[in-house]
Amino acid sequence: MRVFIAGVDGYLGWPLAQYLAARGHNLGGIDCQLRRRLVVEAGGESAIPVAPIQDRLTAFRECFGEELAYCNGDLLDYDILLSAIDSFQPDAVVHLAEIPSAPYSMKGPAEAAFTQQNNVIGSLNLLWAIKTAAPEAHLVKLGTMGEYGTPNLDIPEGFFEVEFRGRRDSLPFPRQAGSFYHWSKVYDSHNIMFACHIWGLRATDVMQGIVYGVSVSSDLRLCTRFDYDAEFGTIINRFCCQVVIGHPLTVYGSGRQQRSFLPLEDCLHCLTLALENPPGKGEYRVFNQFDRFTSMRELASMVQEAATRLGIHTEIRHLENPRQEKEDHYYNPDRQHLTALGYSPHINPQEQIAFMIEKLLPWKDHIVTRRSVLIPEIQWDGSRRLATQLDTRGIP
Amino acid sequence: MRVFIAGVDGYLGWPLAQYLAARGHNLGGIDCQLRRRLVVEAGGESAIPVAPIQDRLTAFRECFGEELAYCNGDLLDYDILLSAIDSFQPDAVVHLAEIPSAPYSMKGPAEAAFTQQNNVIGSLNLLWAIKTAAPEAHLVKLGTMGEYGTPNLDIPEGFFEVEFRGRRDSLPFPRQAGSFYHWSKVYDSHNIMFACHIWGLRATDVMQGIVYGVSVSSDLRLCTRFDYDAEFGTIINRFCCQVVIGHPLTVYGSGRQQRSFLPLEDCLHCLTLALENPPGKGEYRVFNQFDRFTSMRELASMVQEAATRLGIHTEIRHLENPRQEKEDHYYNPDRQHLTALGYSPHINPQEQIAFMIEKLLPWKDHIVTRRSVLIPEIQWDGSRRLATQLDTRGIP
Repeated sequence: MRVFIAGVDGYLGWPLAQYLAARGHNLGGIDCQLRRRLVVEAGGESAIPVAPIQDRLTAFRECFGEELAYCNGDLLDYDILLSAIDSFQPDAVVHLAEIPSAPYSMKGPAEAAFTQQNNVIGSLNLLWAIKTAAPEAHLVKLGTMGEYGTPNLDIPEGFFEVEFRGRRDSLPFPRQAGSFYHWSKVYDSHNIMFACHIWGLRATDVMQGIVYGVSVSSDLRLCTRFDYDAEFGTIINRFCCQVVIGHPLTVYGSGRQQRSFLPLEDCLHCLTLALENPPGKGEYRVFNQFDRFTSMRELASMVQEAATRLGIHTEIRHLENPRQEKEDHYYNPDRQHLTALGYSPHINPQEQIAFMIEKLLPWKDHIVTRRSVLIPEIQWDGSRRLATQLDTRGIP
Repeated sequence: MRVFIAGVDGYLGWPLAQYLAARGHNLGGIDCQLRRRLVVEAGGESAIPVAPIQDRLTAFRECFGEELAYCNGDLLDYDILLSAIDSFQPDAVVHLAEIPSAPYSMKGPAEAAFTQQNNVIGSLNLLWAIKTAAPEAHLVKLGTMGEYGTPNLDIPEGFFEVEFRGRRDSLPFPRQAGSFYHWSKVYDSHNIMFACHIWGLRATDVMQGIVYGVSVSSDLRLCTRFDYDAEFGTIINRFCCQVVIGHPLTVYGSGRQQRSFLPLEDCLHCLTLALENPPGKGEYRVFNQFDRFTSMRELASMVQEAATRLGIHTEIRHLENPRQEKEDHYYNPDRQHLTALGYSPHINPQEQIAFMIEKLLPWKDHIVTRRSVLIPEIQWDGSRRLATQLDTRGIP
């Protein structure tokens, strides 16, 4: 299969390209290295050094014996995007080329606007490019479980049957996102659903949980990035870096908020399941993609235990929550579509986390110099102040 | 009350400024005259000539004895917008500054992207500017009944009570828009709801039906524009221009599609009701704003009869539908919020339409020269071809 990855230089894009190449697929992709720049702007840096894109591409060729057809370009530039899709003629397009940070999107008017513009218009351009140059291609789009928010209902996969005043319909499940970033993903979902409907495109919209994990390659050029700053690092990855440098695990608020999670390896496996089992023409399907859901607090305990087994003592510290979100809520998302395609979670999270900590230990000095980026300062009210420690005696 | 109108040079903005000034309110506004440019690009022109903005402002001062505090600027320019809001210090902001055309948004990738960028980012900038410079101000935002699409359920006002697998919640009513333009309005609605929630802003999101009507002033500088081209003209206004030049009334498809409608005068009255009865701090409310709903076909008959009474014979012609939409569907939207505030529809549409036709007759020669813009050529599949006549024998 010819698979084109938008965002191929990113945390998920780079290992996905290799995962798919190892299965014999032909790879192409586009990236403008925005993620690299935004992390630097946030004062962060990947814990595991990221090779320049040209070195990555060289390593890819050495490892898989063929080129990754790479285009250095921005999805906001429609002509470049169209030409890349047109010349590669993909059977499938995986779209990972978005700004993925909730805090960044809440930083101020410019960042909020840039996040929504970059994500929504980039995705819209991709829809037009697929329609124009590869209308049979299957779009696999990375959304987020955060699109749903935390309704007081089970969370189905995209759609649900509604009865209202005695009449029935099957409707998109209402979204209640929690940041301008999360809303940008909702808007993508709507545009994609609409494009499938009017143009007969086929798409899988992946509502993904929070991914954690490191690359396993010994060739650094093939390793993926690993961010731990408060803007672009995700929670388990940040916890692991905190363990490595002896920093307390920082939990926002009570930590009773529940979220869905997924090891990096499962993410690659699930995206491949979607790719290798495409929907029919005109079909728009939504997959909830996660391995388990749990509270932030339980997560911190899990990381703490994994650290203890490695002989590293780690404390848990609660910080003032910079986000505006419900900390006590019902949470019960469905996950049947991927299971029906054969996905069966089997990774033990504690073992995985221990493995990550071991892989990160060599980069300890690297991380310690930037330890200040571990603490959030972007508040959801648009102000900036470092989150202070909460008195945990008040937390039930 | 100090009311700031974004889009004050537009079809609704200009008469609204006068309506509010006549009630003793102080007016300010911003516009970048995008609508004027887009109509010209579409090959159209207002049937009733539009005075330059400076002449309009002069007439406003002469008529109401005070200045309209006008800023020539684009909502996409955050600094200009912020400074305009900051210096005017509004009690309320009416946001009408969006690209309002479904066909324009379906024309091609550039127009789709521009519509969503202009509308979504413009509105997002406005939210940040209000939060920053006038956080107590009441935002009245023009949305569209088209955000809802045509679900097989009654359409409530924004939210509904859901029971799902034995649990209950009050959730945003799912939106199913029919063009990239209509989706841009949905995205605005979500961003506004979120801003009210996290920042404590107050907003009324107006899901408005299709407006029809002309200005009544004898001073041309005070009259509003009147578009009839297939991109920016709305259906009843276009029908009236067709009557005036003896062109058949062009109905898309079977004409059984139902939509909500509203005379211009009622639109001004309803927006004023919203303004003069603001929501509480942090409250996001949705008003469905229309006077009646009916099918396109009944509408054409209504216009035909109004024309007949004026002694003008008019035919009805069905064209191939350039849109992708359900033509047979359930349609029953609520309209309780405005009624509760005192709105009571009383305008006879046929009399109103006859009045419009009479007002347009002096501009007949004007309209006839651009008669070609009456026929749609933008297809929802992204192609361009003039809609051809349907054989009505096939239409039940």
